[in-house]
Amino acid sequence: MKNAFYAQSGGVTAVINASACAVIETARQYPGQIGKVYAGRNGIVGALLEDLIDTSQESDEAIAALRHTPGGAFGSCRYKLKGLEENKAQYERLIEVFRAHNIGYFFYNGGGDSADTCHKISQLSETMGFPIQAIHIPKTVDNDLPITDNCPGFGSAAKYVAISTLEGTLDVASMAATSTKVFVFEVMGRHAGWIAAAGGLASPEDCPIPVVILFPEIPFKQDEFLDKVKSVVEKEGHCCVVVSEGVKNPDGKFLADAGYRDAFGHTQLGGVAPVLARMIHGELGFRCHWAVADYLQRSARHIASRTDAEQAYAVGKAAVEMALAGANAVMPAIIRASDDPYRWEIGQAPLDQVANVEKRMPKAFISREGYGITEECRRYLVPLIEGEDYPPYSRGIPNYIRLKNRPVAKILKTPFRL
Amino acid sequence: MKNAFYAQSGGVTAVINASACAVIETARQYPGQIGKVYAGRNGIVGALLEDLIDTSQESDEAIAALRHTPGGAFGSCRYKLKGLEENKAQYERLIEVFRAHNIGYFFYNGGGDSADTCHKISQLSETMGFPIQAIHIPKTVDNDLPITDNCPGFGSAAKYVAISTLEGTLDVASMAATSTKVFVFEVMGRHAGWIAAAGGLASPEDCPIPVVILFPEIPFKQDEFLDKVKSVVEKEGHCCVVVSEGVKNPDGKFLADAGYRDAFGHTQLGGVAPVLARMIHGELGFRCHWAVADYLQRSARHIASRTDAEQAYAVGKAAVEMALAGANAVMPAIIRASDDPYRWEIGQAPLDQVANVEKRMPKAFISREGYGITEECRRYLVPLIEGEDYPPYSRGIPNYIRLKNRPVAKILKTPFRL
Repeated sequence: MKNAFYAQSGGVTAVINASACAVIETARQYPGQIGKVYAGRNGIVGALLEDLIDTSQESDEAIAALRHTPGGAFGSCRYKLKGLEENKAQYERLIEVFRAHNIGYFFYNGGGDSADTCHKISQLSETMGFPIQAIHIPKTVDNDLPITDNCPGFGSAAKYVAISTLEGTLDVASMAATSTKVFVFEVMGRHAGWIAAAGGLASPEDCPIPVVILFPEIPFKQDEFLDKVKSVVEKEGHCCVVVSEGVKNPDGKFLADAGYRDAFGHTQLGGVAPVLARMIHGELGFRCHWAVADYLQRSARHIASRTDAEQAYAVGKAAVEMALAGANAVMPAIIRASDDPYRWEIGQAPLDQVANVEKRMPKAFISREGYGITEECRRYLVPLIEGEDYPPYSRGIPNYIRLKNRPVAKILKTPFRL
Repeated sequence: MKNAFYAQSGGVTAVINASACAVIETARQYPGQIGKVYAGRNGIVGALLEDLIDTSQESDEAIAALRHTPGGAFGSCRYKLKGLEENKAQYERLIEVFRAHNIGYFFYNGGGDSADTCHKISQLSETMGFPIQAIHIPKTVDNDLPITDNCPGFGSAAKYVAISTLEGTLDVASMAATSTKVFVFEVMGRHAGWIAAAGGLASPEDCPIPVVILFPEIPFKQDEFLDKVKSVVEKEGHCCVVVSEGVKNPDGKFLADAGYRDAFGHTQLGGVAPVLARMIHGELGFRCHWAVADYLQRSARHIASRTDAEQAYAVGKAAVEMALAGANAVMPAIIRASDDPYRWEIGQAPLDQVANVEKRMPKAFISREGYGITEECRRYLVPLIEGEDYPPYSRGIPNYIRLKNRPVAKILKTPFRL
């Protein structure tokens, strides 16, 4: 009977631990088929360094609490394995560690880069003669994995952004008569506007609010944008601008990198929100407030989407079941059956079609003028933010679990340098 | 039978509308004693411009929904009445409007400046011979009103900051091994560190996390701060810095105003979070992420404190009851009877002791080294963030009410310029 390895990779989310919870709980249901679940401390780095966490030391209650705890409970990493030809020593090391700890199942919970890592591991039987089944568990707030209809983690970030956009807009609406008229809200998305698009959900057709969205897909035209903000403020009295961090000028440069210099002449890499706030105030004279959500949007478990939490659990559970059914080099994918009522099921995607493929937002999701979302986009997004899934609280703050994370005793004598 | 005037003033909060809800619901319970409740559109400005909203046009259900809706439902303002000697015309205009609309009760919902405005109104019987009862309803995220133990609005902002600090810290903890080690989170507080102090609640004694707080009360010492961050990262692997927007250098200058210039040489007034992130990265080499909460912290009704929502309602209700009992120039105040179990009641504060008095955070609430909160501070803060009070949702976002806000027909022929 083989042990399993599970690790988290890349930027964490509000629900990645729900997938971890599912992997461990499901594995515990098959004590005759899967031995222990060892978690990599800090992702694949934990495997390379033989720094494994013994999840069997955690109680059922502690593992259950992972379902409502944000962040990466075992630590994540930004570390991409090189190709087999480039760095064979890495793969030899992994096999050494897996062999030492009798690991036959490899579950990797991450986005596009991690799918690539997982795919390389899945080929170890063929390429290096070491038998292992590698299953990728999708996770990314960027929603950019192919095949799967959406990525666990995105729905909760989208819900946070939709609600924050609504709340920020109600605030600036109250202040606009004598003070601030524009609220600029910066959200994640270097290449794709999925998260920014969620700002559009704050403005449903039957109860619209003045939201202007800047997508990284649309080159930023300063004059046109300022005209847009001006006309919205003149009509509505106020305006909320939701801006994706990755918005670029027509010359392809990030707007956030707008040539600002500090007192010493160094480039100041700031957020794009203050750049826009300054531009709007300078050119239109409107007082602005601005916010940058950064980590908060991807760790806001307190307002996670129920759909998202359920799907994060479902892909983790399916990963273990696929492994037990003999699968390798696959990823559980969310398959949408219908929008309204929303129905979905778990399918199985071949990893070679997932790794290094980036799903962009369809052009048809952005309104013709480029500052809003279409009804098609809304139909896609709404089910992903539906439902609330509140964590338990104690003394006013959520009861997020901090695991013991006891290390597995090292077996290998050889150290390894990353 | 006299009508009532109600208006909202200054920065809005997650629960100011709960006070509005209470004023209107309570007034509706005394149809023989109070006529209509007219709301000022955009605070006192609405009274000066005779721009009144007829709240009797709103259904009981709509008014009830105010209890869970953030922002200022009738619009707020930043507008302070001058002294009677300086601008008598303003007061004559107010009396003209009040007389035209048979207004005998004046409820003003705001912070320190608004208490001053309310106090001036309360003196109109004496100074100008116009009979009116003016009651101030406390509201401010800054928690700086005297006499009242705390200010409605603060508890929900504090809860948002505590939870966001916890969630952001769990995020950076996951990333720290191979990527970002420090998360900088900027919160409100120009003069007092009440909101920043709430970041300390993310780190309870029995489950501490590495949070370093920068208070406006403590002059910023760069070397000492960097040493602190360095030692925390070396010990814990990561660090969360919660910084009050009002942090100042020892020379009294805002740190946020750190001499940054844009490409054109203009001063760039940015947030303090990016300044710190750049400093930490530049001096210590740690990768940083940063967030600026801005309006989101004071409009986050989705995670409002139940204590706060209840108290906001209670002060609105008490204001009407005090008016009916004949009071003038007073403010309902929250009186704390005990910390644990938390017990409070509503008292009555004389407005002349409230107006223009700013309550600072006690020195004993800041830890000796200056980067954290004391147990005394924690005992004070915890009850204020306790309990959740979730709004209803539909299609993934909260059902916040947008009132009809129908204007009251103007009676006066004379226009008025602000």
